[in-house]
Amino acid sequence: MSTRVFILSDHTGITAGSIARALLAQFPDQDFALEEHPFLDNMEKVSAIADQIESLVQSGSPPLVFSSIVDRDSRTLLGEKSGWHLFDIFQAFTPGLKKFLGTAASPVAGHLHGIGNTALYSERIQALDYAMLHDDGSITRNYAQADVILIGVSRSGKTPTCMYLALHNGLQAANYPLVDEDLETTRLPAILRDHLDKLVALTIEPEQLHRIRQQRRQGSRYSSLEQCQWEVHQAETLFRKYRIPVIDTTAISIEEIAMRITTEIMQDTK
Amino acid sequence: MSTRVFILSDHTGITAGSIARALLAQFPDQDFALEEHPFLDNMEKVSAIADQIESLVQSGSPPLVFSSIVDRDSRTLLGEKSGWHLFDIFQAFTPGLKKFLGTAASPVAGHLHGIGNTALYSERIQALDYAMLHDDGSITRNYAQADVILIGVSRSGKTPTCMYLALHNGLQAANYPLVDEDLETTRLPAILRDHLDKLVALTIEPEQLHRIRQQRRQGSRYSSLEQCQWEVHQAETLFRKYRIPVIDTTAISIEEIAMRITTEIMQDTK
Repeated sequence: MSTRVFILSDHTGITAGSIARALLAQFPDQDFALEEHPFLDNMEKVSAIADQIESLVQSGSPPLVFSSIVDRDSRTLLGEKSGWHLFDIFQAFTPGLKKFLGTAASPVAGHLHGIGNTALYSERIQALDYAMLHDDGSITRNYAQADVILIGVSRSGKTPTCMYLALHNGLQAANYPLVDEDLETTRLPAILRDHLDKLVALTIEPEQLHRIRQQRRQGSRYSSLEQCQWEVHQAETLFRKYRIPVIDTTAISIEEIAMRITTEIMQDTK
Repeated sequence: MSTRVFILSDHTGITAGSIARALLAQFPDQDFALEEHPFLDNMEKVSAIADQIESLVQSGSPPLVFSSIVDRDSRTLLGEKSGWHLFDIFQAFTPGLKKFLGTAASPVAGHLHGIGNTALYSERIQALDYAMLHDDGSITRNYAQADVILIGVSRSGKTPTCMYLALHNGLQAANYPLVDEDLETTRLPAILRDHLDKLVALTIEPEQLHRIRQQRRQGSRYSSLEQCQWEVHQAETLFRKYRIPVIDTTAISIEEIAMRITTEIMQDTK
């Protein structure tokens, strides 16, 4: 039987959910059923959830409860309940932070996943507009405005990474697919040579590329192992020639690719 | 002078960064300079960072350090250093979890923001393909495969929300913009009437819509306050008529819109 896990938040609960998932991943032999309860922004809602948890405790199946609720009264209400363990993220770290900073906390402060800084938020929306418009090499004339231009063969991870970089980092991320006619030469297309310092290359193991492409167009030349091997080989030759930083996306996620780009590659330029 | 904040992680550090930002938001009077150090996946890298922190402590400017490193030896190395406070996310919650679950933790367990479950991960990539293809009403013939279809006037937040739902929730999210010819009638387009149960409407205050559109096409009919008022009024009339759940995006972020869709609106259907 799986353990029920309540994620309580006065806002989206994205952070609390992330922490809970990371912590629970340490217990791979157990089953957990996560239930997200976001937007618990008044005592009435908190009280209703507390009652729900209470009745689970009474029935002998206490749930795990993670909370990122900031409001002190709500936290007190939750903390007073007995028979279940509250993992209170603010409670866990705030005392230490107060001590370190030598100052009191203002528990009414802004929310992490809200609009927050309006200028920054509209930057993210604009960045997404840019990424949508400059996806897949469709429009290349505004590369001067790009923060980063991802290049690579079809299905190497360019599009999802661009969308992630725009939505999360507010970066104007364009992407350009290297197709046969680009790969048959030993020079990058002129439009890319003009922006060498913005290029980041994505590569992928040919076998993995073959598997991914087979799901799209089984039995086609596009998805054949030979074609995948040739494309990756040609692309990597170009990347080396122009000394473009390369990320192998074979075994890593979009979040990991994006983090490597922002912390390892772009650190000097942004 | 701002306090330097180190975010240490053996992986992307996205969770650790989120927690740090949420906690530091409680201290709005202070300045913080966040430095992300992801992928600290061996003792050599951890040791180098520890030395860097150590020398800041020696110079009288101890940084704040948040860590989500799982490896026990690395955490011991960091914890042994004196003169600075380590906010160790695993240390804070793991003992309580072990007690609750009555079992030991396996600190080698999977990473939250990695590829993890391959099937789930490829679902996210496929969902993004779907969302890209079905953005802005461009293709409507595959709505049977949609998990959710967002409708609303231009610039009400449909596209970023769809991209977020695809990337984060693996949902096949389409969006359809209500344009003048849709708004001049009292019936929804037939293609939407065929999928009423999948529709989620986004609305926005006309003044805010006017400001956003002015940034795109200043002085145009499209961006005039009158046009914005008319469009929103007509759209909301349609939403009421067809009893479509509505989210007002005026003051909330993409994350909040997405969380409301997945937890409040889609809970019954997905």
